[in-house]
Amino acid sequence: MLRECFYHVSNSNWAYAYTKEKIHLRFRTKRDDVTEIAAVTGDKYDWDRTYKEYPMLRIASDAYFDYWEATVKPKYKRLTYGFRITAGTETVWMVETGVYNEQPYPPGGYYDFPYIHEIDLFTAPEWAKSAIFYQIFPDRFANGDLENDPEGTEQWGDTPTTDNSFGGDLQGIIDKLDYIVNLGVNAIYLTPVFESPSNHKYDTLDYKKVDPQFGDNAKLKELVEACHDRGIRVMLDAVFNHCSEHFALFQDVVKKGEKSKYADWFHVREFPIEVKDGIPTYDTFGFFQHMPKFNTANPEVKEYLLDVAEYWIKEIKIDGWRLDVANEIDHHFWRDFRKIVKAANPEAYIVGEVWNDSLKWLLGDQFDSVMNYPFSNKVLEFFSSSYMDGYTFANSMGFLLMRYPQQTNEVVFNLLCSHDTPRVLTCVGEDKRRLKLCVVFLLTYIGTPCIFYGDEIGLTGGGDPDCRKCMVWEPEHQDNELYDFYKLLIALRKDYDVLRQGGFRFLKADSGDSRIIYERIDDKMHFTVWMNNTEEETVLSHPMETDDWKDALSQEDVVPENGMMNIKLDPLGYRILYRWL
Amino acid sequence: MLRECFYHVSNSNWAYAYTKEKIHLRFRTKRDDVTEIAAVTGDKYDWDRTYKEYPMLRIASDAYFDYWEATVKPKYKRLTYGFRITAGTETVWMVETGVYNEQPYPPGGYYDFPYIHEIDLFTAPEWAKSAIFYQIFPDRFANGDLENDPEGTEQWGDTPTTDNSFGGDLQGIIDKLDYIVNLGVNAIYLTPVFESPSNHKYDTLDYKKVDPQFGDNAKLKELVEACHDRGIRVMLDAVFNHCSEHFALFQDVVKKGEKSKYADWFHVREFPIEVKDGIPTYDTFGFFQHMPKFNTANPEVKEYLLDVAEYWIKEIKIDGWRLDVANEIDHHFWRDFRKIVKAANPEAYIVGEVWNDSLKWLLGDQFDSVMNYPFSNKVLEFFSSSYMDGYTFANSMGFLLMRYPQQTNEVVFNLLCSHDTPRVLTCVGEDKRRLKLCVVFLLTYIGTPCIFYGDEIGLTGGGDPDCRKCMVWEPEHQDNELYDFYKLLIALRKDYDVLRQGGFRFLKADSGDSRIIYERIDDKMHFTVWMNNTEEETVLSHPMETDDWKDALSQEDVVPENGMMNIKLDPLGYRILYRWL
Repeated sequence: MLRECFYHVSNSNWAYAYTKEKIHLRFRTKRDDVTEIAAVTGDKYDWDRTYKEYPMLRIASDAYFDYWEATVKPKYKRLTYGFRITAGTETVWMVETGVYNEQPYPPGGYYDFPYIHEIDLFTAPEWAKSAIFYQIFPDRFANGDLENDPEGTEQWGDTPTTDNSFGGDLQGIIDKLDYIVNLGVNAIYLTPVFESPSNHKYDTLDYKKVDPQFGDNAKLKELVEACHDRGIRVMLDAVFNHCSEHFALFQDVVKKGEKSKYADWFHVREFPIEVKDGIPTYDTFGFFQHMPKFNTANPEVKEYLLDVAEYWIKEIKIDGWRLDVANEIDHHFWRDFRKIVKAANPEAYIVGEVWNDSLKWLLGDQFDSVMNYPFSNKVLEFFSSSYMDGYTFANSMGFLLMRYPQQTNEVVFNLLCSHDTPRVLTCVGEDKRRLKLCVVFLLTYIGTPCIFYGDEIGLTGGGDPDCRKCMVWEPEHQDNELYDFYKLLIALRKDYDVLRQGGFRFLKADSGDSRIIYERIDDKMHFTVWMNNTEEETVLSHPMETDDWKDALSQEDVVPENGMMNIKLDPLGYRILYRWL
Repeated sequence: MLRECFYHVSNSNWAYAYTKEKIHLRFRTKRDDVTEIAAVTGDKYDWDRTYKEYPMLRIASDAYFDYWEATVKPKYKRLTYGFRITAGTETVWMVETGVYNEQPYPPGGYYDFPYIHEIDLFTAPEWAKSAIFYQIFPDRFANGDLENDPEGTEQWGDTPTTDNSFGGDLQGIIDKLDYIVNLGVNAIYLTPVFESPSNHKYDTLDYKKVDPQFGDNAKLKELVEACHDRGIRVMLDAVFNHCSEHFALFQDVVKKGEKSKYADWFHVREFPIEVKDGIPTYDTFGFFQHMPKFNTANPEVKEYLLDVAEYWIKEIKIDGWRLDVANEIDHHFWRDFRKIVKAANPEAYIVGEVWNDSLKWLLGDQFDSVMNYPFSNKVLEFFSSSYMDGYTFANSMGFLLMRYPQQTNEVVFNLLCSHDTPRVLTCVGEDKRRLKLCVVFLLTYIGTPCIFYGDEIGLTGGGDPDCRKCMVWEPEHQDNELYDFYKLLIALRKDYDVLRQGGFRFLKADSGDSRIIYERIDDKMHFTVWMNNTEEETVLSHPMETDDWKDALSQEDVVPENGMMNIKLDPLGYRILYRWL
């Protein structure tokens, strides 16, 4: 056994309360190095009478490691534990003080989970586990009110630039709610809608006012109510890292310098406010002088922004906040943000924009979820060609799953693209078959999926601003076959709990082979998904013990031969099978 | 290179802000596997113009790994980074997405430290870095007021039991302040002093009242003022996990059951309050029915206890809180505790009682420090016999140092024993030479040392209650030679900043050899400590380039021969050398 590969840290994502009664313990070993692991557990104040062993399951793997997990239920909320690791005839123990050839005398030196506190428990909103989001960039979705079009509004469908506008608005979204309902999604995420000089509105002028180009506050309320009437949740975009340079309080600092009452609202490195050699004298988003960064550590700023966060939940009853540039705002701010938001609506969903490893924000005290770009990158990398093999892809997914606690994995915001990245169809070389493999994976995987407006009817586009094209509404220019496919897969995910909350495992993910099989399973149902990520027709085979499988999309029976399921797949084809347990 | 051993996690103790300008990056490799590591860094919004490389230093090792560190100073508070790892002619790169043979195109997929926020920065009180604590168990230290002795007070010096009392009190401590000042310590830690039915007072009856056996609130104020007049800080013991079963509000629950206004102040699993088959129907400390556990998630309880925390800081001006059973109280409570305590006194020192890995509490939002029992265990294990070699000991120390950020290591509460463990002299088989090696190590190591009352005059004792013997005050029964030794070493630590804040490194820590040499170094001074943890006389040799070394205790010159320092050491002897840089 390669002891250097053993890894566990107490009171972390390696040992966390999953519910108020259950603790998840995880352990890492070198890949394919170990045959069996048991968690040896007890209450440190009465070890002998509370002693219990739990076998651990190998739940994921990556390029270097296997990851093992056990769900442990301590009788008195306290858990002290170690690991017994076996490879063939060799057995060793690992506890907090090290690795031993003999079991160390318990419980001194063992790992400790001192007490399960419900208040520290990470709980994401239940509804988010069943949500399928649809992301809308309001200026480009639908123009429902020509009256509020800004001066110079472009012809709908013309080429987007970084600063042109197309007149999309909230009335447009209301008008298209039937379309959204018909697609089957049950939540929408709107990029910013508050007053701002830009088309994307990520540089806010007034946090309590809907941009007049989009409508007004009453219109937003009407939209949210119309959505709720249709069972659709609404998440807005909170841009709290920075504001517009025209934000009144920043302008006060521009004018009065250090003497401004608001001088400490921003991170000014040097007065006066100016741009020297291309670098602003104040901190900004990136180096964009028109986006001055808030000093969220200033209690006045914090109060101001938290009031905004609470206002829209109470006033308009929104269901969640997506947090722009969330990683560049301090943790104290986000902890208080969570308290205020959850007090206003305990079921509010909080999704941070963090492109990197986000564990620091996902331990129960800050966000429920993050935008899962690492997921997008790997899915697009795999399905956009046939170069990557299933082994590598499965390793990537295992690596990402093991970064976060299960609570996050269940509601992590999985997306294929957004207003900040090239469109999925463009990423896969406009090959609809490859797009479909991405979508099948997205909609049968763990986490909360989100579809970027227009992907479902074949919209293409490179990076910003090309990915922010106007939605196509003429039926003859929409890809209806693709729309029906999305609709079918969305319905499938909504119909079967197991696709949202069941266990996930790769059944086939081999070196040098881009074909994969994976399963979702719970105590009621078993799904298997068969994917041929190659340009050749193929037959994928896997042992199956029962003959009660059905095709989930056609409801045809699919029967194994002599215990072996042989599935013929078109080039870049897929099939989804299921059975009841 | 064994890539499986590479380890780094962003936004954790592997990458943290040390000051508002500096970030510490740490990286782990297999022991003796790698020759060179560089952190490759930049600002993700302007990588090319901000690109900078930092060589990393190998700062510690343990049984399996080397640990490397670099201090990085990003120009705009944001840092994106990766690692270039070299072993001989082989070079690889590690970034967040994995390990690569070629440098991955930056900055996508690299690690990210989004922004240094001063509010998130972990800062411990400056004074704690220079503090040397003296722990007092008031009932056993000195009886200064016979009037307040409880009924049945034992003869001073008789055998302690779990429930007898000896009449020690606050007046006793005041009377002995000259003794404490003379010893040289500059801080005292008192175990609980609030009203309680027990001799240890870890089961509180009234959190705002000094126990009448110890004096009264005015007497505590007098003690704190007398300490402050002498440059001595005072830390009290906060017992917030549980109270006494006779605590009035718990008694209300005992009497009224579910109908009590205070029913939710405790964790009652089942009413009525009773003990069934030896197990209370309510959560307790351990399974002790007389110590009911508070429900600190209840806002009323939290307010009540936080008010106590603030009260003694504001009223009596105490300098810190030691937190009893800190790991069994929720994190929300401790985060608010820190806010209240630091608001009342920004220089207050917060030390949690956590016997295990305490990282979760040491990230800047909860404690400054913890009682470092893992340190005690390893130091006692090494110096109590000559069985362990220097290599193993150094590995243990390296392992512990790398668990926490530098801020914690500088103020972690290092102790050799306490009221909860056997006395150090007893642990080392009553061999004073071994005791002295422990004390030399304690007082020349990183962290805030604490001496348990009486250790300095030769008090012995096994586990509780034997370790809580009465202090010996008759000069003829005190070990004066030992006292002078403690005094000398305390003075040494106070005289030289480098012993408190300098870098630490083992110069000799070999397999099969219990003799060690280590250094403390800063930009002004260099100390080397030579220890012969064997029963034989020996000569320890190590290359030394200059001939300006002095013995730190005798001030004798100590000169190397031909670039080699040869130090003759008695069995279990030591020497401390220093030079000015």
